[in-house]
Amino acid sequence: MPTRPDRIAFQGELGAFSQMAIRQLLGPTAKAVPCPTFEAMFGALAAGSVHGAMVPIENTLHGSVHENYDHLLRFDLPIVGETSVRIVHNLIVPPDLKASAIRRVYSHPVALNQCLTFFRDHPNLEKVPYYDTAGSVKMLAEEKPRDAAAIASVLAAEMYGCRILKRSIEDDKLNFTRFFLLRRKAPPLPAKPPKRGYKTSLVFTTRNVPGALFRALSALALRNIDLNKIESRPFKGRRWEYLFYVDFLGHTNEPTVRHALSHLREVADMLKVLGCYPRGD
Amino acid sequence: MPTRPDRIAFQGELGAFSQMAIRQLLGPTAKAVPCPTFEAMFGALAAGSVHGAMVPIENTLHGSVHENYDHLLRFDLPIVGETSVRIVHNLIVPPDLKASAIRRVYSHPVALNQCLTFFRDHPNLEKVPYYDTAGSVKMLAEEKPRDAAAIASVLAAEMYGCRILKRSIEDDKLNFTRFFLLRRKAPPLPAKPPKRGYKTSLVFTTRNVPGALFRALSALALRNIDLNKIESRPFKGRRWEYLFYVDFLGHTNEPTVRHALSHLREVADMLKVLGCYPRGD
Repeated sequence: MPTRPDRIAFQGELGAFSQMAIRQLLGPTAKAVPCPTFEAMFGALAAGSVHGAMVPIENTLHGSVHENYDHLLRFDLPIVGETSVRIVHNLIVPPDLKASAIRRVYSHPVALNQCLTFFRDHPNLEKVPYYDTAGSVKMLAEEKPRDAAAIASVLAAEMYGCRILKRSIEDDKLNFTRFFLLRRKAPPLPAKPPKRGYKTSLVFTTRNVPGALFRALSALALRNIDLNKIESRPFKGRRWEYLFYVDFLGHTNEPTVRHALSHLREVADMLKVLGCYPRGD
Repeated sequence: MPTRPDRIAFQGELGAFSQMAIRQLLGPTAKAVPCPTFEAMFGALAAGSVHGAMVPIENTLHGSVHENYDHLLRFDLPIVGETSVRIVHNLIVPPDLKASAIRRVYSHPVALNQCLTFFRDHPNLEKVPYYDTAGSVKMLAEEKPRDAAAIASVLAAEMYGCRILKRSIEDDKLNFTRFFLLRRKAPPLPAKPPKRGYKTSLVFTTRNVPGALFRALSALALRNIDLNKIESRPFKGRRWEYLFYVDFLGHTNEPTVRHALSHLREVADMLKVLGCYPRGD
C-alpha cells in the first residue's frame, strides 16, 4: 500500500535551491510544493495544506533572511530540522542550443551578481535580470529562445530537461544557505539522539535597561552553552527596542538547557522557544 | 563674503526622507546632493566630491539597512552625527488636480504598503509601485498625469511645487528612521560636551569559541556602559561566523570607555571604532 507523500512547501519555482534542501534533508520521496512568497509558504503550513515548510534563514554572503525571522515569531510552527546547501550556479541551455549561439543570460539579479568573473571572461554575454533562478530555466524550456541561457541549480536543469553547459560558475565557493524545516507539531525525541547533537532556537525581548542583553546571554554562557548565532530585529510598537533570535547547541530536555531557559525567563520580558532540531549546518 | 556650502550626499531624489535628515541635523544652509545608490553616496564622500553623507541605518518597522553596515566597514569614513526622522507619508497631487480625479497613486512599494488603511478606505484608488517616494512626486510635476497622486514627504511636495491633499496617511505612527552623518575626518571634541552625551559605534569579530560574544560584551557590561544596539552580519570568507556592530553610550575620550575598548581588544579578533558622535536618536 503506498504511503501518503510528505508534502513540503518552499518559496520559488521547481528546481529552486530550497527544493535541493528538501531532497537533502528528507530524501527523494518528499514532494516539493512551490509557493509564490514566504508568507504564502508559512500560511500553507499553518492551514495544513502541506506537511512541512523549508525556510531559508541565512546565507554566508548576504546574511539573514529577515522576513523569515519575523514569520517565525508570528506563526506557531516549530523548527524540527536544519540543513545547509552549497549554492552552485551553472550555465544552463535548452538541450539543442549550441554554446556559440548564446548572447543573453537570464537569472535572478543576485545570481547574476555572484558570477561576475564568468561575465568578465565572456564580455559578449548580456546579463538579463529575471524573477527567479529556476524560473529562468523554466522559461528557456517553455519559450525556447534561440540565443539565451540561464544561471540556476543542477536540479533546475534536471527538472526542465535542459543541459548544463558549464558547472559552478559562481565567484565565491563559500556560498551556503542555511534552511529550517518547519512542521505543525514537534516530533517526540528519538530514543537515540543524533551524533552531532541538537540545536535550540528561541526569541526573547529584554527590559530596556543597561546590561539587559548581557544578563540574558549570561544564562547561556555561565552554563558553557555554545551560542551559534544571535540576530536582532526591531520590536514593532517600540522605538529602538529589539527582539533577539538566538541559536545554541543543546536540547530543551537536557537539565543544563532547562536551567538556562528558566534563568533566561527570569531576565527576559518575553521568551519563545522556536524549536529543537538535530544539528545540520 | 559667502562661505562655501556644506555639500552632503544622500541616496534618492530631492525631497527624500534622507534630505529631511540633513535639514534636521545641519539646518537649511547645507546642500543636499542626490546619489543613485548607497555605494555611490559612500564613494562620493571617499572621493571628496562632497563634505558629508547622510546614511539611513535602521527603521523601527523594517530593521537595519544591512547594506550600509557593510559599507561602514569597507569605507574609512567616521560617523560624526546621528539623527532620527519620523516617517510621515502624505497624499500629494499637482497644484491644479482635484481629489475626485485621482484613480492611481504612485510611490515606492514600501511606502504603499505602509498606507494600507488609507487604501482600504479608498477602494477606487490603484496602487502603482515606483522606484522612489520623492521620485514619484517629481514625475507628477514633470509629466502631469490627469488622474494620479503620489505618496511622499512634506519636503517632496515643497521641492516640486505640489500640493498635500491629505497629511500623515501612514498606518503606524511609530515609524522612525535613524541616520548617521559621515565625514572624511572626525572633528575635535568640543569644549562643552552636548547635553544628551555621546554615542560610540564599533564593529568587531570574535574567535569562534563558546562564550566569545558574551566575553566581548562583558567589556562593556562590567563597566555599566549602556549598549543601545547590536547587529550581526556575515563574516565573508568564513562559514557561519559573524561581524558584530555595536552602539553604546559614551565617548572614547572617557577613561571608562578607553578601558572597555582595551579590554574588548583583548578578547576580539578584530576591532574598528566607526565613530563617536553626539546622541541624536
